[in-house]
Amino acid sequence: MEHKKTAKRLRCIVKLGGAAITCKNKLETIDEENLKEVSSQIRQAFVRESTSANVIGMDWSKRPGQSEAPTFINDLCDQPVADSESFIVVHGAGSFGHFQASKSGVHKGGLSRPLVKAGFVATRISVTSLNLEIVRALAREGIPSIGMSPFSCGWSTCQRNMTEADISMVIKAIDTGFIPVLHGDAVLDTLQECTILSGDVIIRHLAAELKPEFVVFLTDVLGVYDRPPVEPGAVLIREIAVREDGSWSVVKPKLEDTSKPVEFTVAAHDTTGGMVTKITEAAMIAKLGIDVYITKAGTDHSVKALSGFLKGGIPDDWLGTAIRYMS
Amino acid sequence: MEHKKTAKRLRCIVKLGGAAITCKNKLETIDEENLKEVSSQIRQAFVRESTSANVIGMDWSKRPGQSEAPTFINDLCDQPVADSESFIVVHGAGSFGHFQASKSGVHKGGLSRPLVKAGFVATRISVTSLNLEIVRALAREGIPSIGMSPFSCGWSTCQRNMTEADISMVIKAIDTGFIPVLHGDAVLDTLQECTILSGDVIIRHLAAELKPEFVVFLTDVLGVYDRPPVEPGAVLIREIAVREDGSWSVVKPKLEDTSKPVEFTVAAHDTTGGMVTKITEAAMIAKLGIDVYITKAGTDHSVKALSGFLKGGIPDDWLGTAIRYMS
Repeated sequence: MEHKKTAKRLRCIVKLGGAAITCKNKLETIDEENLKEVSSQIRQAFVRESTSANVIGMDWSKRPGQSEAPTFINDLCDQPVADSESFIVVHGAGSFGHFQASKSGVHKGGLSRPLVKAGFVATRISVTSLNLEIVRALAREGIPSIGMSPFSCGWSTCQRNMTEADISMVIKAIDTGFIPVLHGDAVLDTLQECTILSGDVIIRHLAAELKPEFVVFLTDVLGVYDRPPVEPGAVLIREIAVREDGSWSVVKPKLEDTSKPVEFTVAAHDTTGGMVTKITEAAMIAKLGIDVYITKAGTDHSVKALSGFLKGGIPDDWLGTAIRYMS
Repeated sequence: MEHKKTAKRLRCIVKLGGAAITCKNKLETIDEENLKEVSSQIRQAFVRESTSANVIGMDWSKRPGQSEAPTFINDLCDQPVADSESFIVVHGAGSFGHFQASKSGVHKGGLSRPLVKAGFVATRISVTSLNLEIVRALAREGIPSIGMSPFSCGWSTCQRNMTEADISMVIKAIDTGFIPVLHGDAVLDTLQECTILSGDVIIRHLAAELKPEFVVFLTDVLGVYDRPPVEPGAVLIREIAVREDGSWSVVKPKLEDTSKPVEFTVAAHDTTGGMVTKITEAAMIAKLGIDVYITKAGTDHSVKALSGFLKGGIPDDWLGTAIRYMS
């Protein structure tokens, strides 16, 4: 597929992992504090000359318990607004959507089954309600965020692989100065009728089409570990090198027992694929020459990753996993 | 523009007027009772063999104050589900979106002005939050509703006239048995950068492309009056005949003082156009041979309009405005 590329160079695609912004064991509950912190960090990274004092709030909805619009709107006038670099936000589902999807088996297809059809509708309601809250959180930080659902954008799959994904509207949104906010979604599938399109697959597609300078995955642990991070002695993988054929290997740290196959783990709270899928997706992006940084949301490490600071090299005190092309 | 038409014949396009489903003087407040009643009437009209007892609820989100998913989900299994006729719901904004749009002047364009840009984002947040609640209300009635935002669908305008409006995704949704729920939205405009695309303009476009059997506008008054309905002696226009050139005249009742220009009024709560616009839009649909019925939501009259009963002729006890082509 050939698309008109953006006039503006895309700086970054940010993945907000579901685990980082929702409370994973509480059905449909946002981690408000984390979401606010992440939104603020995103503003600081991409909105030039941005301070918390000069933010123009863009969520004008009444707040819970209020009957009027927030009063700050009365003070809004046409003051100059800080310019934003181009970026895209894609988020996962966390405690939204997964319950509905797994209960009904939407990812396995079969829309003629009433349970699957109802689950498809229920999943979309859940993930779009999370999308709305993330758009709101970003808008409150003065980020001109625009929610865009893959289903509505006309994206669909064939046997769970993305086929139709017209990104012209994403490009138009970016070129007019908006920040598209996409999400993992229930979509139509030409072979199995329906499935779940994960945020990670969306990012890979967008990265291949739009060639951002770098991609940041924000999650609830520091990065990729050699075993489940709760296990004693789990080692954070600091750097993965990806070769031209898409194969990859750990560069840093040097793992002691190289004969033992490395078990890769980041916090998993999705039904859309395990960790190997995640690394494989990241490696496919890195293969294009686009650095991928996986790190913990709301930390100094995520600030550094979002700022593009790591493009110059990974400092020793940065904690996270960098996945980069090595020619 | 030529589009692949739906395999399924489209039965109806339903407009949920903002005034019918929101409390017009209370910012961002849904009229829950009306919305529930309207959703139930829509189910009865379009879902075959539907009773309130055999509804499969499709909103599985936790309810306010609850921490768990609703218990009915545990009882869901693959029971046969009542088949639904094809229809589309388009809703207005009511007390959602209008405040944000008029405060910022989104309809007048000019995205380079920070206030307009912020208002664009704020308007979309407000209208998409209403869309989500309407999708939920329909889903609770077992209607497989799918929210689709015109912006995300890639629809845009040129000098406020619709230009790009790829309806292929609307068609796909219908053909796979879903009910698209669209809404008036803030969109990009090639000449003035941005504007508001009203629900009525969306309906005209969809009607022209998809040729539904009839179109129903549900509002908060019985229909179109010869003067503001609150004025003493206001007369409900029962039938308007539309000629091939799009001109129209009142057929019923015979107005006494024909020398006086008739002042047409239905309850207005939008910034997107006055009453003449509304009738003109309806007349453009009727000109295609598609009956248009305007009536009060949640009444016996709306039941009759939604059921298609009026296609055979307008009974004397039906209160509303029928706008029909007269060859």
